Amino acid sequence: MRILLVGATGKLGTAVHQELVERKHDVVTVSRTGGDLQYDVTDPAQVADLYQTVGQVDAVASAAGSVPWRPLAELTVEDYQAAVTGKVLSQVALVKEGLSFVTGSFTLITGVLAREPVVTGAAAALANGAVEAFVRAAAIEITPLRINAVSPTVFTEALDDYGAFFPGMKPVPLADVAQAYVRSIEGRQTGQVYEL
Amino acid sequence: MRILLVGATGKLGTAVHQELVERKHDVVTVSRTGGDLQYDVTDPAQVADLYQTVGQVDAVASAAGSVPWRPLAELTVEDYQAAVTGKVLSQVALVKEGLSFVTGSFTLITGVLAREPVVTGAAAALANGAVEAFVRAAAIEITPLRINAVSPTVFTEALDDYGAFFPGMKPVPLADVAQAYVRSIEGRQTGQVYEL
Ligand SMILES: NC(=O)c1ccc[n+]([C@@H]2O[C@H](COP(=O)([O-])OP(=O)(O)OC[C@H]3O[C@@H](n4cnc5c(N)ncnc54)[C@H](OP(=O)(O)O)[C@@H]3O)[C@@H](O)[C@H]2O)c1
Ligand SMILES: NC(=O)c1ccc[n+]([C@@H]2O[C@H](COP(=O)([O-])OP(=O)(O)OC[C@H]3O[C@@H](n4cnc5c(N)ncnc54)[C@H](OP(=O)(O)O)[C@@H]3O)[C@@H](O)[C@H]2O)c1
Repeated sequence: MRILLVGATGKLGTAVHQELVERKHDVVTVSRTGGDLQYDVTDPAQVADLYQTVGQVDAVASAAGSVPWRPLAELTVEDYQAAVTGKVLSQVALVKEGLSFVTGSFTLITGVLAREPVVTGAAAALANGAVEAFVRAAAIEITPLRINAVSPTVFTEALDDYGAFFPGMKPVPLADVAQAYVRSIEGRQTGQVYEL
Repeated sequence: MRILLVGATGKLGTAVHQELVERKHDVVTVSRTGGDLQYDVTDPAQVADLYQTVGQVDAVASAAGSVPWRPLAELTVEDYQAAVTGKVLSQVALVKEGLSFVTGSFTLITGVLAREPVVTGAAAALANGAVEAFVRAAAIEITPLRINAVSPTVFTEALDDYGAFFPGMKPVPLADVAQAYVRSIEGRQTGQVYEL
C-alpha cells in the first residue's frame, strides 16, 4: 500500500516507519523538519497542501501530536487550547482534508491518559479523550473509509523522559505499538481504539 | 449546601435546579440571559468574575455546553473549535477558576456520544470525550475537591428535537439525570463518569 506517515521521524514514527517498510509498503514520511515532506499539520491549510502534493494514498497514519505536561494548578486555558491544536484539531484535519485522497484508512494516535490519569497529564488526557471519541464518531460517517486510534501507555523506549509520571504502570515496547498500526492499516476494523 | 448552577435555565438545568431546591440546597443560578446572574462561561475572564461575585460555594454544577451538529463531511475545523470552546474549555475554566472558591465538588455535563456515536455528532462526541478524560485526570490532582461528569443519552424531554438522531436508543428522563447530579454533589466519589 501507499501510506502517508505523519510524525515519521519521532520515537513512535520511526518504529512505525520501520515496520511498514519491512512489510513492503510504500511510505511517504512527513514532519515539520524531517522526512520526505515538511509540513506542520497544526495548520489546516498546510494539511490541505500536503494532500494536494501527495495525491491518492491507501492509508494515513499519524504519529504526531504534542501536548503540554504541567500540574493542573498551573495549566492555563492556553495550555488546554495548545493540546487541542497540537493533537486534536491537527489529526481531525488529516481526516477531514484526506476524505477525497484516502482510499483505505486513517490511524490516529492517542494514549493511555484518555482512560487512566497521571499527575500533570490533564491537558494530554483531554486531547486523547477528544480524539478517541472523534474516531468512534467519524467511523460511522466515513465508510467505506476506515478510522482507528492507537492508544498506548508509556513507551518502554520513553521511560527515561516519562517513566516518573507512570509509577507502577507497565510500559509498552514500540514494536508492539507499531503492530497496532499494522492491525489498523491491514485489518478491516473501524471505529476501534487499540489500547496497549 | 450553597451550589452554583451554570446553564440553570435550560432543559437540563431547570430539572437539576428543581431537584436541588427540593433537597433544600441554596442554588445560585447562572446563564447568559437568565437566572440570578448573567455570565458567558465560554469567556474565561467572565468565569473569573463570576467566582469573584459569588464567592465561596460548596459545589459547582454545570448544565451548559453547546456544540454544532452537522454531517462529518460538512463539519469545519471552526465547528470542532466551536465545540471545544462551547463545551470543553468553558467547563475546564469553571474548574480552573473555581479551585480557590469551591470547597466540595464540580459536576460537569458530557453525553453518550463520548462512547456511542450517532450521525452528525462527531464534534459533540469530540467535546464529550475531552471532558470525560479531563474529569478523570483532574480528579487525582484536585483532591480533597471532587469532580465527576454526568453523561446522559438523549433526554426523553428532548426527543422532539433530537430523537431522530438516536434511533433505537432508549432515552433517559431528566428526573434521572438530575439524580446523577445529586449523586455527584452529595456523594463522595470523584473522577467518575455517571453514564445514563
Ligand atoms: N512517548 C510516549 O511514551 C507516548 C505514549 C503514548 C502516546 N504517545 C503519543 O505518541 C505521539 C508521538 O510521540 P513520540 O514520543 O514519538 O514523539 P516525538 O518523538 O516527539 O515525535 C513527534 C513526531 O511528530 C513530528 N511532529 C510534531 N509536531 C508536528 C506537526 N505539528 N506537524 C508535523 N509533524 C509534527 C515530529 O517531527 P518535527 O519535530 O520535525 O515536526 C516527530 O516526527 C504523541 O502524540 C504522544 O502523545 C507517546
Ligand atoms: N438535550 C439532550 O438530549 C442532551 C443529552 C445529553 C447531553 N446533553 C447536554 O446537556 C447540556 C444541556 O442541554 P440542554 O438540552 O439542557 O440545553 P439547553 O436547553 O439549550 O440549555 C442550555 C443552558 O445553558 C445556558 N448556556 C448556554 N451557553 C452558555 C454560556 N456560554 N454561558 C452560560 N450559560 C450558557 C443556557 O442559557 P442562555 O442561553 O441564557 O445562556 C441554558 O440555561 C448540553 O451540554 C448538552 O450537550 C443534552
